[in-house]
Amino acid sequence: MPAPFFNPLVANLSAPPIPLVQAWARDYSGTHGPLIDLSQAVPGYPPHRDMLQWLGEAASSTAYAGYGSIEGETVLRQAYADHVAGLYGAPVETANVHITAGCNQAFIAAIMAVAGAGDTVLMTNPFYFNHESTLAMLGIRARTVDASAARGFVPEVQAIAGALTRDVRALALVTPNNPTGAIYSPEMLRAVYDLCRANGTWLILDETYRDFLPTGSEAPHGLLALPDWQDTLIQLYSFSKSFCIPGHRLGAIVAGPDVVENVAKVMDNLQICAPRAPQAAVARAILPLTDWREANRAEIASRAAALHEVMSRLPDWRIEAIGAYFAFIRHPFDGISSVEVAERLAKVAGVVALPGVFFGEGQEQFLRFAFANADVATIRQLDTRLVLVHS
Amino acid sequence: MPAPFFNPLVANLSAPPIPLVQAWARDYSGTHGPLIDLSQAVPGYPPHRDMLQWLGEAASSTAYAGYGSIEGETVLRQAYADHVAGLYGAPVETANVHITAGCNQAFIAAIMAVAGAGDTVLMTNPFYFNHESTLAMLGIRARTVDASAARGFVPEVQAIAGALTRDVRALALVTPNNPTGAIYSPEMLRAVYDLCRANGTWLILDETYRDFLPTGSEAPHGLLALPDWQDTLIQLYSFSKSFCIPGHRLGAIVAGPDVVENVAKVMDNLQICAPRAPQAAVARAILPLTDWREANRAEIASRAAALHEVMSRLPDWRIEAIGAYFAFIRHPFDGISSVEVAERLAKVAGVVALPGVFFGEGQEQFLRFAFANADVATIRQLDTRLVLVHS
Ligand SMILES: Cc1ncc(COP(=O)(O)O)c(C=O)c1O
Ligand SMILES: Cc1ncc(COP(=O)(O)O)c(C=O)c1O
Repeated sequence: MPAPFFNPLVANLSAPPIPLVQAWARDYSGTHGPLIDLSQAVPGYPPHRDMLQWLGEAASSTAYAGYGSIEGETVLRQAYADHVAGLYGAPVETANVHITAGCNQAFIAAIMAVAGAGDTVLMTNPFYFNHESTLAMLGIRARTVDASAARGFVPEVQAIAGALTRDVRALALVTPNNPTGAIYSPEMLRAVYDLCRANGTWLILDETYRDFLPTGSEAPHGLLALPDWQDTLIQLYSFSKSFCIPGHRLGAIVAGPDVVENVAKVMDNLQICAPRAPQAAVARAILPLTDWREANRAEIASRAAALHEVMSRLPDWRIEAIGAYFAFIRHPFDGISSVEVAERLAKVAGVVALPGVFFGEGQEQFLRFAFANADVATIRQLDTRLVLVHS
Repeated sequence: MPAPFFNPLVANLSAPPIPLVQAWARDYSGTHGPLIDLSQAVPGYPPHRDMLQWLGEAASSTAYAGYGSIEGETVLRQAYADHVAGLYGAPVETANVHITAGCNQAFIAAIMAVAGAGDTVLMTNPFYFNHESTLAMLGIRARTVDASAARGFVPEVQAIAGALTRDVRALALVTPNNPTGAIYSPEMLRAVYDLCRANGTWLILDETYRDFLPTGSEAPHGLLALPDWQDTLIQLYSFSKSFCIPGHRLGAIVAGPDVVENVAKVMDNLQICAPRAPQAAVARAILPLTDWREANRAEIASRAAALHEVMSRLPDWRIEAIGAYFAFIRHPFDGISSVEVAERLAKVAGVVALPGVFFGEGQEQFLRFAFANADVATIRQLDTRLVLVHS
């Protein structure tokens, strides 16, 4: 009997990273205080009380028990279109919105709509690991441009221009960035958009951390106000972080109606429609929770300040970049792999961070701290923990 | 500027079928009574009151707001493993279960784990359309064996043997069948399993309609009790129909731990984890709602009887097969396409059914009636509606 066969593109993927580092954390004895989990990006505060109530109301209603429309509940598509239109000062309509079960799903659905096995997609190095593993499992070739520490982890427009050969179907960027925290400027994004447009390449912008931009309510870029953006831009968003509801699985794509139509074909096969009750709840929440989200943004800015302060006490460690949710930290151990440093940090010091190498080759010197997970008091203890790890 | 490019495998997919026929239905004037919607398989009764309450409780709890484990909530994996173990008299464990956001997602996740672009998967003709479109969009070659009306739409084991060349990664079967309602016998499934096993081919069994088998609580087959089933069988299930909660998106895979591990890698990219609150609610519901599911099974059996009765009054129309949820009906119009018949039926008579050709080439003579959607009184009116359509 032949041995059972797995798809090598899947079998060769590494195990999902988050459960792996959480397994290290279980080996921590607790001696130095409670675990400080800076691994997965999850806000350390609960959802708003009203949000929970609206989730409960919708979930217990027969109104959302049946199948919903593939593109999403009209109330949410409309409410989110209005929100995006307001934020970007741009005419975004219901027909531009496709709701998904989270932003990972938004990415895979968008990618499948524009690329298939053997096609090429451009990313940065370091990258968000699920972007890389999604492409790998689909047999899509990932090409990378470096986003180096020297330039604050923002890729050079020239380097992108050089890598954008005719066969590149899409350029996937994440801003504010995961893992580095880098924030791409409106000017840089405009230059990249123009390159993509000229080359017939889709620009896929993952804006999962948009609501935590330190600058508040200014438009993160002007692309949605350009006349023909619908032929080039595909914008991705997650409700997970902003509304503290990752367990409910909701994200969104903003794109041209052609893209929405093709994404709907993909989504019908991926899961028919996103879960409906959370869609109804989030549609109710977008406007009334504006101030709450604003307060969270301020809270996370104070966490960033606390991280700056605590790291300044550790001259061997360096914050290389810090942004909406993450800091990319240079650890002091030359010649020790980032996996080993992260493993020791978790097991010995009870601080769970992700190794740089999870985000791309050559990132051995770095660790990703999802600092937004921890409150200011916890972040202030980091110095006493980090010093517990020796080379 | 080059024109924006879509993945041709996606661009060439037909638009999702359900919204298409529902658009026809909107043209029905209402003259002959309310619309009778036999298109999408959705039970015509609401979820159980307790189910709604549990959904609401879980959704409004902070306990399920965060990210969950990729494979699913342990409570649900355990409860479902126990349920399957009991039903099949077989040792199914928590480690054998992967929870997904519905059974379409169970299918794509399982397929991606075992096949990639260029590989071959075997199905029946007629087939469940999302299986076909899923394979097409992934660039997986679909080969079909006929399941003909003459044999009650059960494919011949000999035909499967002939089609199972070495390159076939998986055989996907649906029993009780969508679209035909055919129920595959334990003996037939055992013979097919042995063929798959000898050939190193995965047998993917979609059992979405299992709880509506007319025979009640006997095991639908004995495969899970075979010693090495984990190397060959991948069983799929949906909580959508049995618990009347398609809008909450939950399904399950039962398979060997190797399969679960590979599916988890796929799921991490597809959507990290299935929505958590419904998982907690369904875990509570499986046992206490046993009698309620049993009553629904009986109700749907009486709907099948009503369909038999009403169709017997229309000698030109014929029930070719009828099973747990669907009937495959031969319409009387030779030379008129199934799409045209279905369109007229919707627009003129207000009866929404799916054209046979949506389920495969050569199915022009048939319509699929999801009769389980309509209550007995509604089904009894079908004769007065069907006669409104003329050739
Ligand atoms: C850049 C980025 N995109 C997408 C996601 C996935 O978010 P969601 O929970 O919406 O699937 C994450 C989550 O960490 C992320 O960091
Ligand atoms: C055979 C079959 N498999 C899977 C599904 C998808 O069900 P779910 O709602 O669980 O995604 C359906 C739904 O109609 C179906 O008929």
